[in-house]
Amino acid sequence: MQDFKNVVAQFENRLRGQSPFPPEPYNLYEPCRYLLSLGAKRVRPALCVMGNELFADIKEDAWHAATAIELFHNFTLVHDDIMDKAPLRRGHATIHAKYGLTAGILSGDVMCIEAYVQLAKLGNHLPELLQLFNATAIEVCEGQQLDMDFEQRDDVSIDEYIRMIALKTSVLVACSLKMGAVIGGASRGDADKLYEFGKNVGIAFQLQDDYLDAFGDTAKLGKQNGGDIMANKKTFLLLKAKELAGPKTGELNELMVAEEDTKVRGVLTLYKETGADELCREAVEQYSEKAFCCLEEIDAPADRKEPLRKLASYLLQRDK
Amino acid sequence: MQDFKNVVAQFENRLRGQSPFPPEPYNLYEPCRYLLSLGAKRVRPALCVMGNELFADIKEDAWHAATAIELFHNFTLVHDDIMDKAPLRRGHATIHAKYGLTAGILSGDVMCIEAYVQLAKLGNHLPELLQLFNATAIEVCEGQQLDMDFEQRDDVSIDEYIRMIALKTSVLVACSLKMGAVIGGASRGDADKLYEFGKNVGIAFQLQDDYLDAFGDTAKLGKQNGGDIMANKKTFLLLKAKELAGPKTGELNELMVAEEDTKVRGVLTLYKETGADELCREAVEQYSEKAFCCLEEIDAPADRKEPLRKLASYLLQRDK
Repeated sequence: MQDFKNVVAQFENRLRGQSPFPPEPYNLYEPCRYLLSLGAKRVRPALCVMGNELFADIKEDAWHAATAIELFHNFTLVHDDIMDKAPLRRGHATIHAKYGLTAGILSGDVMCIEAYVQLAKLGNHLPELLQLFNATAIEVCEGQQLDMDFEQRDDVSIDEYIRMIALKTSVLVACSLKMGAVIGGASRGDADKLYEFGKNVGIAFQLQDDYLDAFGDTAKLGKQNGGDIMANKKTFLLLKAKELAGPKTGELNELMVAEEDTKVRGVLTLYKETGADELCREAVEQYSEKAFCCLEEIDAPADRKEPLRKLASYLLQRDK
Repeated sequence: MQDFKNVVAQFENRLRGQSPFPPEPYNLYEPCRYLLSLGAKRVRPALCVMGNELFADIKEDAWHAATAIELFHNFTLVHDDIMDKAPLRRGHATIHAKYGLTAGILSGDVMCIEAYVQLAKLGNHLPELLQLFNATAIEVCEGQQLDMDFEQRDDVSIDEYIRMIALKTSVLVACSLKMGAVIGGASRGDADKLYEFGKNVGIAFQLQDDYLDAFGDTAKLGKQNGGDIMANKKTFLLLKAKELAGPKTGELNELMVAEEDTKVRGVLTLYKETGADELCREAVEQYSEKAFCCLEEIDAPADRKEPLRKLASYLLQRDK
């Protein structure tokens, strides 16, 4: 039973040892190599391998699936960064900022296809895993579209928001775990429970991210609070505060167009006055609880569950 | 044994009957529906089904593979049009021109993934066909990259150019046919020969396209001659003329920066004086010959080969 760090180290080794990208055409593959070298956390591929190890010793297929997941994830980052006009990713220039729009589009495309090259290496369960991967990939695109749509809308509900973050980020986490579980020979029921564990961890993580952006320890975050507020991002906090603002709705609307300092301080105060802050913490807690319940219910030895429990606790800052 | 038109009609029927795209998110799928409705020739999907029928009655899998191929082809068109800043496709506004850059990127992405959704429906030969499809898809991306690279280079050789058009367009035609052949139960040798047939038809077609742009019947083309010359496109004709220009190299270089009318008339004259025009026709003839030889060698009844022979003759204007 290996912990997260150990699995990540092995994954990095494999990725360095057998690069998915040939040397030429240089302008196609260099941006891919650049992005993959930028020191990512590799949470998704590690979860895939850990999902396998929950039920059986690690199989070669788990590494193929893990690589597919990581490549697909990086493909979505490249294209999302173009759509979001983001200059930085992992603290470095994004592909389109460094190499141009064409490189951003085409290198993203080839990473997506390379994910399927990895999937095609699967020795077992290919049809089932391909279908799961496809369904997830479609959902990720739909989540990104909803995120884009929400920027233009003023009537986004909390349920819609949760559905969007689930599609955009959580289903890929869930898919990673389930692919690992299937490769490890899990029963259908256990594989589905592991999927639900991942999905709920993902949602809890995203909601926690919303909370920390507003109220997190600025020293730990390495940035000021309120980045989402300045960017007018429709987060759980903002949507909930709007829902609960009542007579303070006018004040909130005015604050949203106020000068930066006033805006951040004012909106943060309203998050507390409306109770949106507490409700966000409670939501994180509820999705975390749901996640740990799913893990609990899986028919596997407690010591095999431990690395996943520890990783989720770490991600959700529930270390105890 | 059905001819091209018949197969296309059936394909269109199926596409209309079972749209690969759900209604929502509207902004994601509407651009996909728009592009697929623009009356394409459907050469690639038809070739897939005809490749099957060369060896056996049409199987359901052939329609899935054909749909995958057509979706993938349309995905590449959407992204290529962004990279080429093209305003029109099939006589209508391109997706990015009509719906914006985000729609162009994301709707393209989801069409690519939807292609794999179709592949996952294959009841037989899934690993083999997935690998063939992946290898082809990677090659198509590499071909597009080479095309982009060539715009910046002044030392592109004829061999490099042929390799680029083979990757960018011919391998997908070849892959369509071979997928059909495999589904139809062809031997490995016959499937490979059909692949070579498609690849050579594709190259011949592209070279003919270069020729017709310069010397084709303007009434039939519906446009003036010399579009490629005005766009400074590195075609077979231009590369060959440069190779053979000798003492006229200076004249050619001057013409390339001349005013439009002078440029087109002058370069067309040079194509004739250097003999590039004849060499282009000969190259079309050579690749066509090679293609028909491959078809000839395939172990299948002559009447089953007839629809493919007729279609290739039509595409290569060799109707006799």
